[in-house]
Amino acid sequence: MTEKEKVAIIGSGNWGSAIARIIATNTAKHENIFEKETKIWVFEELIDGQKLTEIMNTKHENVKYLPGITLPENLIAEPDLIKSVDGATILVFVLPHQFISRTLSTIKEHIKKGCRAITLIKGFVVDDQDEIHLISDMISESLGIQVSALMGANVANEVAQDMFCETTIGCADQKDQEMYLKLFNTKTFRVSTVSDVYGVEICGSLKNIVALGAGFCDGLSFGGNSKAAIMRIGLLEMKKFAQMFYKGVESETFFESCGVADLITTCVGGRNRKVAEAFVKTGKSWNDLEAELLNGQKLQGTLTCDEVHRFLTKKGKIEEFPLFFTIYLIAQKKVEPLRVFDFDEVTTEFKK
Amino acid sequence: MTEKEKVAIIGSGNWGSAIARIIATNTAKHENIFEKETKIWVFEELIDGQKLTEIMNTKHENVKYLPGITLPENLIAEPDLIKSVDGATILVFVLPHQFISRTLSTIKEHIKKGCRAITLIKGFVVDDQDEIHLISDMISESLGIQVSALMGANVANEVAQDMFCETTIGCADQKDQEMYLKLFNTKTFRVSTVSDVYGVEICGSLKNIVALGAGFCDGLSFGGNSKAAIMRIGLLEMKKFAQMFYKGVESETFFESCGVADLITTCVGGRNRKVAEAFVKTGKSWNDLEAELLNGQKLQGTLTCDEVHRFLTKKGKIEEFPLFFTIYLIAQKKVEPLRVFDFDEVTTEFKK
Repeated sequence: MTEKEKVAIIGSGNWGSAIARIIATNTAKHENIFEKETKIWVFEELIDGQKLTEIMNTKHENVKYLPGITLPENLIAEPDLIKSVDGATILVFVLPHQFISRTLSTIKEHIKKGCRAITLIKGFVVDDQDEIHLISDMISESLGIQVSALMGANVANEVAQDMFCETTIGCADQKDQEMYLKLFNTKTFRVSTVSDVYGVEICGSLKNIVALGAGFCDGLSFGGNSKAAIMRIGLLEMKKFAQMFYKGVESETFFESCGVADLITTCVGGRNRKVAEAFVKTGKSWNDLEAELLNGQKLQGTLTCDEVHRFLTKKGKIEEFPLFFTIYLIAQKKVEPLRVFDFDEVTTEFKK
Repeated sequence: MTEKEKVAIIGSGNWGSAIARIIATNTAKHENIFEKETKIWVFEELIDGQKLTEIMNTKHENVKYLPGITLPENLIAEPDLIKSVDGATILVFVLPHQFISRTLSTIKEHIKKGCRAITLIKGFVVDDQDEIHLISDMISESLGIQVSALMGANVANEVAQDMFCETTIGCADQKDQEMYLKLFNTKTFRVSTVSDVYGVEICGSLKNIVALGAGFCDGLSFGGNSKAAIMRIGLLEMKKFAQMFYKGVESETFFESCGVADLITTCVGGRNRKVAEAFVKTGKSWNDLEAELLNGQKLQGTLTCDEVHRFLTKKGKIEEFPLFFTIYLIAQKKVEPLRVFDFDEVTTEFKK
């Protein structure tokens, strides 16, 4: 008999809690494949004097980050990061990307041999040399294990309420693809698997740049055709970027939920779009708009836009991504928003 | 010296007039390639006692179908269909698809040898045997000439106002691709060319089925993720349909404006979407809703949905298109709208 898979979820914010609900439901459902008890690492904090892990383990609710949603009883909150991964064969990473390095160093010596990981973390890390490091690469380089990625048009609160959506898992191993399907798929959370990990992962970051462009269109009160054109050209630049810098990225991946579907939701309803619209309409600074519209939370799109610009400058590839470049220049107030549609000319004008 | 291309535009409705403005601007601009004078066939009618062709040739405006937009002076309105195609080397078909057969019989014996055609007509013709006939095939079979197709996220009034958008031309001949680029491309109407004619043409029809599904999501007040999922699954069924029944259809075509961009505009803002939303919210019949919301104009989506269903039934391929089938069943009031997300189960249940 083969050993059962033991799952550890690392991270318990809004998305971490929503996906933990699905995972623990499935580990209970498929007891022949998975150990039913599923650990989730929770960064301990006090809620009205009571420990969050205690509340989660008695009330079965993450009252802080996913209030109102009941979590399965076989999901066990664990405040000790090292204990949470003890004996685990599957590590699910779902925490803000700025915490990934520290987390990896902490668990490095304590993971089980032969375990695998899957990242649900959007965004990448850019170093002082303007090099991009994908989270999947950081995990696999640090822990020496195989890493998959899960991305899609998934707003945590909608997933938690079982509203229908899809997601994409990029996993290079055929057998693990089947296992991940069992771990994540439900009737309302439809999983597709592809073997292209990088393609899946990169979509989740770059879409936020395109969302700024979509927001500029809205701010200019342009029609649906213009905005759809910007979204489409953005999708092509995402694809080109992924295929230029990463091996094995497939065109078909961009037809998956992580590609076209996530781009649509982000450009129609997301907060990057919303703030970019206000940026055009009010002329205020990004900092002011973050304070006003996002309670001071930082916008992912402007950060990614800036990072990708530095990376492309270093690689000497600016002019191959004229829309990304033009969105960057507009965000920097170096170019009028209306020129978003003029990206070819703008690029010729501004490239050194 | 090679002979100059002579362009005839067949059709002068809202879209015909908008594209005629672009064409005539370009024939004047590229006088080395095209004869400047460009004929447009106008179905003659009286406007306040004056002939529409006369108004167009003196006032340079199509006061009935594209009011407020000035047309180039080298665009000549011609009420006689046969005269309008006399000597033409490029025929641009842009009229409602129900008039295509009659138009082809009329001009059949009068076209110049070696001329080519391009169709801007959305939709196809389904015969009594439930066979689908694409407009491009009907033209090429009737006239014995090579036919290209132009489709994209192009609302006529936005195009006429030079709002930025994109379009796709499917043309099998490399040299003609370059010629069509010169004929159609402008700074704000960006043309891409592909060699896949069928792929381009089919997108323009099938998107309206998906728009009904998107409208059902809106009617049910589901979130952006659910709607994006339906749009994505719809795009995949469009692609599958085109590749199953037509030779040479390329996956990449669906990344063009005719594919993903047109689908986005249609599912976010189009009238098929709008009426489908009302269908769910009010429970009224399609006929009543057409009368109320479209001044009695017929909805393309429900017609195409029905025709594609008959075609797929005949081919025995219903269950390979579960979303199309489920949208059909909902439109027929055989299934509750909420089950749009249950398309696999619905299909298993209802297929014979």
